[in-house]
Amino acid sequence: MNVLIIGGAGMIGRKTAERIAADGHLGGKAVTGLTLYDVVPAVVPAGSKVPVTVLSGDLPGAGEAEKLIAGKPEVIFHLAAIVSGEAEQDFDKGYRINLDGTRNLLEAIRRAGYKPRVVFSSSVAVFGAPFDPQGIDDEFLSAPLTSYGTQKAIGELLISDYSRKGFLDGISIRLPTICVRPGKPNKAASGFFSNIMREPLAGQEAVLPVSDSVRHWHASPRAAVGFMLHAATMDLDKVGPRRALNMPGLSVTVAEQIEALRKVAGDKVVGRIRREFDPFIDKIVAGWPARFTAERASALGFKADTSFEEIIRIHIEDELGGKIA
Amino acid sequence: MNVLIIGGAGMIGRKTAERIAADGHLGGKAVTGLTLYDVVPAVVPAGSKVPVTVLSGDLPGAGEAEKLIAGKPEVIFHLAAIVSGEAEQDFDKGYRINLDGTRNLLEAIRRAGYKPRVVFSSSVAVFGAPFDPQGIDDEFLSAPLTSYGTQKAIGELLISDYSRKGFLDGISIRLPTICVRPGKPNKAASGFFSNIMREPLAGQEAVLPVSDSVRHWHASPRAAVGFMLHAATMDLDKVGPRRALNMPGLSVTVAEQIEALRKVAGDKVVGRIRREFDPFIDKIVAGWPARFTAERASALGFKADTSFEEIIRIHIEDELGGKIA
Repeated sequence: MNVLIIGGAGMIGRKTAERIAADGHLGGKAVTGLTLYDVVPAVVPAGSKVPVTVLSGDLPGAGEAEKLIAGKPEVIFHLAAIVSGEAEQDFDKGYRINLDGTRNLLEAIRRAGYKPRVVFSSSVAVFGAPFDPQGIDDEFLSAPLTSYGTQKAIGELLISDYSRKGFLDGISIRLPTICVRPGKPNKAASGFFSNIMREPLAGQEAVLPVSDSVRHWHASPRAAVGFMLHAATMDLDKVGPRRALNMPGLSVTVAEQIEALRKVAGDKVVGRIRREFDPFIDKIVAGWPARFTAERASALGFKADTSFEEIIRIHIEDELGGKIA
Repeated sequence: MNVLIIGGAGMIGRKTAERIAADGHLGGKAVTGLTLYDVVPAVVPAGSKVPVTVLSGDLPGAGEAEKLIAGKPEVIFHLAAIVSGEAEQDFDKGYRINLDGTRNLLEAIRRAGYKPRVVFSSSVAVFGAPFDPQGIDDEFLSAPLTSYGTQKAIGELLISDYSRKGFLDGISIRLPTICVRPGKPNKAASGFFSNIMREPLAGQEAVLPVSDSVRHWHASPRAAVGFMLHAATMDLDKVGPRRALNMPGLSVTVAEQIEALRKVAGDKVVGRIRREFDPFIDKIVAGWPARFTAERASALGFKADTSFEEIIRIHIEDELGGKIA
């Protein structure tokens, strides 16, 4: 079977590709071709067991989605998006890629007349305050407070409608914040959740701009890839018509993150976290949801990390070759 | 001020136009021009106090929305839509008019660089079963089970996002079923709610295809026009970022409808209702929401009819010249 990853150069796309390339199969079926598509060329996973095709282009462009669908991939991961900050700053670009691009893909599938599995990576950005402090349940309304969240919420509605009509077999999965995110520190307001783990483990100082009591919702990159593969292979008839699911995660405070880091890596590593309160970031983070119930996804077999120590160990294994600085 | 009604040939559009034409003002401001736009030419209200322009065209067509916005109408009612049944049968047409048409309008406004009030007529079709039997509250999620409902839910998300960004000042109002709907009996599954009132009052027999215990959510055409005018003139800062509101209505059973008809028009008129159970219609209607809380809209000054007798009297006054057959 052919597999297509749209957004194959992004972090989750890359890790999903690496996993499929290493396994050589998906849901018990041999993968005979893996196509990685993005605006920039994706990296072919080293030692891939399956032939990999790398394509780059502009998803909302005329004929582009048709080209991607020509080989009738049975599984399509649609992970491509203009991220939150950029979609907020560049209104046209956000709607063009995140809405028109998604519609282009869904229409190309409908017109091709076959019914692939489509896994759409959505986001908790579909939710906007005020939140229930008990946690966001599976029936919480989509009332986004960003253009990115609006575009993701529209994508979810389209995935559900195209699935209901039988044009494709789709599911939207709302990912928690990915932690520990590999790579360089970035300026995203959520960046510090990863920075205060990743940088100290690599021997670098990291700044904590909020209070230790801040609570957030996390999943490791490995858990996120697990969500992707499960979404690609599970029986969607069990999901019913509401095809957008909150993924399970771990709700922990910054203090709990730091204690987990101490257990796994010791006081010396924890000592590399420097507290420097930033009221601007603190205020942004206060508007984010801190916990979800995710009962539907858990009942459907999606699995979160079991502890924040596990999340840290996954980072050490997958990104640091097992070594702490 | 200029007022534009998109969907001006439809029932609510026509009645809203008649009211504005008769008043000559809206929210304390003189209306200097009223434009009625639809796929077919709308009727100019008799004795209009304001100059009326009638235009017809294809809203999603290139340049069409720009043409409508050229006069910078300060208030825009966007009521145009392919209805539920047709949008379900003709997927392309539904998305083209209900989604592309709406986006065309919103983009034309954004590019024109002014900030009109936009009243978008949405629908309770944005909701899909299962419902809370206690009533659908203002935070109930949009999980539509039709393409029409999906297109309306997307329109609501766009109205909220464009409003949040300051490109326009928009509100989406979700209308109850309109009863008593004037005109001929139609084949809509919901048609009998009006038929069993309108036809007997006009001396005709009407068929009741469901049990007397069926409950539904109603507003008179006059109440619906009241919602439109209030939405066009109220202070939207009070509404906050969640710009889609369930309109208040009356939740009554068919038995209560019939008792109201008996009180207003007597046994002879009620005797023209013939019971002929239709399991197909009964099943469709069983999947519809029967009551809403509508607390936000009520607190914001939207007013429902006070009784089903009032709904019947409004029909007799507005459509039958005060006379019962």
